[in-house]
Amino acid sequence: MTDSAKRFGVIGYKGRMGRALAAVIAEAGHTMQIGVDAGGNPVPLATQCDVLVDFSAPEALQENLDAAKTARIPILVGTTGLQQDHCVMLAEAADTIPVLQTGNTSLGVTLLAHLVREASAKLGQGWDIEILEMHHRAKVDAPSGTAKLLGEAAAEARGVSVSDAMDSGRHGQTGARREGAIGFATLRGGTVAGEHSVIFAGNEERITLSHTAEDRMIFARGAVRGAEWLIGKTPGRYTMAQVLGL
Amino acid sequence: MTDSAKRFGVIGYKGRMGRALAAVIAEAGHTMQIGVDAGGNPVPLATQCDVLVDFSAPEALQENLDAAKTARIPILVGTTGLQQDHCVMLAEAADTIPVLQTGNTSLGVTLLAHLVREASAKLGQGWDIEILEMHHRAKVDAPSGTAKLLGEAAAEARGVSVSDAMDSGRHGQTGARREGAIGFATLRGGTVAGEHSVIFAGNEERITLSHTAEDRMIFARGAVRGAEWLIGKTPGRYTMAQVLGL
Amino acid sequence: MTDSAKRFGVIGYKGRMGRALAAVIAEAGHTMQIGVDAGGNPVPLATQCDVLVDFSAPEALQENLDAAKTARIPILVGTTGLQQDHCVMLAEAADTIPVLQTGNTSLGVTLLAHLVREASAKLGQGWDIEILEMHHRAKVDAPSGTAKLLGEAAAEARGVSVSDAMDSGRHGQTGARREGAIGFATLRGGTVAGEHSVIFAGNEERITLSHTAEDRMIFARGAVRGAEWLIGKTPGRYTMAQVLGL
Amino acid sequence: MTDSAKRFGVIGYKGRMGRALAAVIAEAGHTMQIGVDAGGNPVPLATQCDVLVDFSAPEALQENLDAAKTARIPILVGTTGLQQDHCVMLAEAADTIPVLQTGNTSLGVTLLAHLVREASAKLGQGWDIEILEMHHRAKVDAPSGTAKLLGEAAAEARGVSVSDAMDSGRHGQTGARREGAIGFATLRGGTVAGEHSVIFAGNEERITLSHTAEDRMIFARGAVRGAEWLIGKTPGRYTMAQVLGL
Repeated sequence: MTDSAKRFGVIGYKGRMGRALAAVIAEAGHTMQIGVDAGGNPVPLATQCDVLVDFSAPEALQENLDAAKTARIPILVGTTGLQQDHCVMLAEAADTIPVLQTGNTSLGVTLLAHLVREASAKLGQGWDIEILEMHHRAKVDAPSGTAKLLGEAAAEARGVSVSDAMDSGRHGQTGARREGAIGFATLRGGTVAGEHSVIFAGNEERITLSHTAEDRMIFARGAVRGAEWLIGKTPGRYTMAQVLGL
Repeated sequence: MTDSAKRFGVIGYKGRMGRALAAVIAEAGHTMQIGVDAGGNPVPLATQCDVLVDFSAPEALQENLDAAKTARIPILVGTTGLQQDHCVMLAEAADTIPVLQTGNTSLGVTLLAHLVREASAKLGQGWDIEILEMHHRAKVDAPSGTAKLLGEAAAEARGVSVSDAMDSGRHGQTGARREGAIGFATLRGGTVAGEHSVIFAGNEERITLSHTAEDRMIFARGAVRGAEWLIGKTPGRYTMAQVLGL
Repeated sequence: MTDSAKRFGVIGYKGRMGRALAAVIAEAGHTMQIGVDAGGNPVPLATQCDVLVDFSAPEALQENLDAAKTARIPILVGTTGLQQDHCVMLAEAADTIPVLQTGNTSLGVTLLAHLVREASAKLGQGWDIEILEMHHRAKVDAPSGTAKLLGEAAAEARGVSVSDAMDSGRHGQTGARREGAIGFATLRGGTVAGEHSVIFAGNEERITLSHTAEDRMIFARGAVRGAEWLIGKTPGRYTMAQVLGL
Repeated sequence: MTDSAKRFGVIGYKGRMGRALAAVIAEAGHTMQIGVDAGGNPVPLATQCDVLVDFSAPEALQENLDAAKTARIPILVGTTGLQQDHCVMLAEAADTIPVLQTGNTSLGVTLLAHLVREASAKLGQGWDIEILEMHHRAKVDAPSGTAKLLGEAAAEARGVSVSDAMDSGRHGQTGARREGAIGFATLRGGTVAGEHSVIFAGNEERITLSHTAEDRMIFARGAVRGAEWLIGKTPGRYTMAQVLGL
């Protein structure tokens, strides 16, 4: 997948995602560079890395961007829960280094969002859009970030905002379906890693575009693929869609 | 399906369901008996019928039960929106005549409810139960009556009430899934006649039991099969499950 | 859908598809022009039509193309079972008039084929492609023409031929999956109008792109939409994908 | 799951299934008893075990049954590829010790087979039965043993043999669906652990009963549950269905 071994700095490498990243980085023939800070805590040695991968916390974003800027290396940010001020930080960093921020690093979901955009643009208003997702019983919010990301792709292609179109959590006397709505339905149970379907329901026919994650490893795999791709790019903002050449 | 032609009295025979019933009754070699009342409106001639089929309105239930009682013939009631007082009427009529009341006359849904009950009883609490349904864009309430009927089958088999267990319309910060909950999710769009799935999600495995209605004709077909079966029974309450020999 | 009423000539208007076309043409505010030939058989009056729609038989293709050429009007050909020599006829007619020939006139399937092509091109060889279809119990061949059409879209995007890649009818000691194969699996039963899924199975993730036909009416609706679009075009070959602006 | 720790002897403990069994046995608080034979190879110490679990090879079956008989302990056999003569061995061993032999130890599949049997018995001939399965790209035979096990459940409930009813690997000019056939369709790709669906397709409605294995660990979990259940039973043949109380 890459012509030569690269040196990865993984921030947030202790959690489940960190372990998955370590496994994929090793599998792909790359190395992880980790040092120790003044307090004795392990930190990526940004100056000895070719790329940083950040799956830590929003509070740490500015510090991580600064480390990448100082080392003049690209950074892939997969941290969730970012707010408006984090977007400003990302934009500012992108003046100096390549920055790829994404809510879902899976290649499959990235392609799915692209196909949803295409279908939504071509099918027009006669086709009702519904988004269904299922995750394990421990997930605490609904709908999933990925479901929202898919809804945004569908909404943008129609020239509307997903927050205006969203119809989530139907229950009781809902009345007939609102024209132009994008419906969201949420299933929770067992150990499901993540399933998403976008349904386009027309008159007497339906198109359904789905993604099934069998294992969370796919997010690590996509992140490493994205980070490899980011090395050597000029400063600026990049997307997972570009990694896939979409 | 029946050894000889029977005479059906269909109440509520003017709507879409009435037309479907008329088609199925004719197809099965039976006849429909319709007269005219004092005001010139067509009514089933209960005294010249072998069975009444009522898909009209809750307000008309008492009158229809009385007609069946006077004629001493069985009645199948598929009217939706019945309340507590209607249950009393049905119970009272069942002292005199055979009465079958159901929220869904489809043979497939009847069997599905039976399988759901069985699975729920055998799998135990480690398996999370989720119910998903999709209907056309004109449906005004959620979840569907059939989804609730399936939820009741699942809940009863666990010895709990579906109203206590129901978790419908998830949205926002829901927290982790409540143990023992039965989740409901609703999709609306296009012209979908009706699809229901009951998912049992355990650790690393799932069982899904689904029903797809391609056409509303199945409800008429099940109602006629139920009415045929009801002819000649002793007074009492009957269920669609009994029609299928479950 | 169209700014003014058009005159349709429907060849093969007696079958189930003909009746569906008649209904959709009327619904859309167009008219059907039918005359009587020397033998007393009804025929479309090509010279009084704006467009011909041919869902008849391969044997009649040359005659129908000739009628359209004489009248200098476009023709949409949805006839199945065409062979190599029919392709020559179509190409020849397209020198004079607009010609749209397709194996599936559904707008949903047309879009699905487009999405399959896109996904196949972007995902690369690491993703195994499988095509599943289900139709009613009376269908006599497998896989369906639409399944093959979807397989062609997937194969072309990879630069291979579907006949080389096809792996249909697995049974017995098959050995491990051949790299680059496109698998086909066929389900038959009940009254299913037509369901198709194209599965891209990668490492620990899957993308599934599906189409469900609830009713055969969709093929008539797509054909009328295609024929409307064809009116006024310059001579040449056209595709359903162009009708959708793909 | 068990009131006290048991001593398990696992035959075939070196493979992927063996490792999964070791993990589940430890997780459940049991122990694995392994000794060394005359040639220095590790073997279960049957005489120091409460139960044997055999996932090895058909050739080793007689020896394993003999070890269990000598130690007078139960044995659960999950070995695949057994032939007629192995059935004789199992029957003979069951005179002395409890024997549970099964092609699939998953609790979910066991329940699914039970539901399929029930549905098949109740729905009658008007409903066409189709069985669909998907597994990873490395699987070498079709349909899967579990698909056949589900087909047997469906066939037995109808009083026919699955080998007579089986219609697997449809391709080409198949003709209309044979009445009473049980169709099998096979998908292969990616890393799919195992998915099975049994479809009952009637007139305008369908019931689908499905099982999804997210991870092969479920087979180890079911085997351990089965082995626990088997301890203390009287000699005889037992089934996974009995473990679930079906």
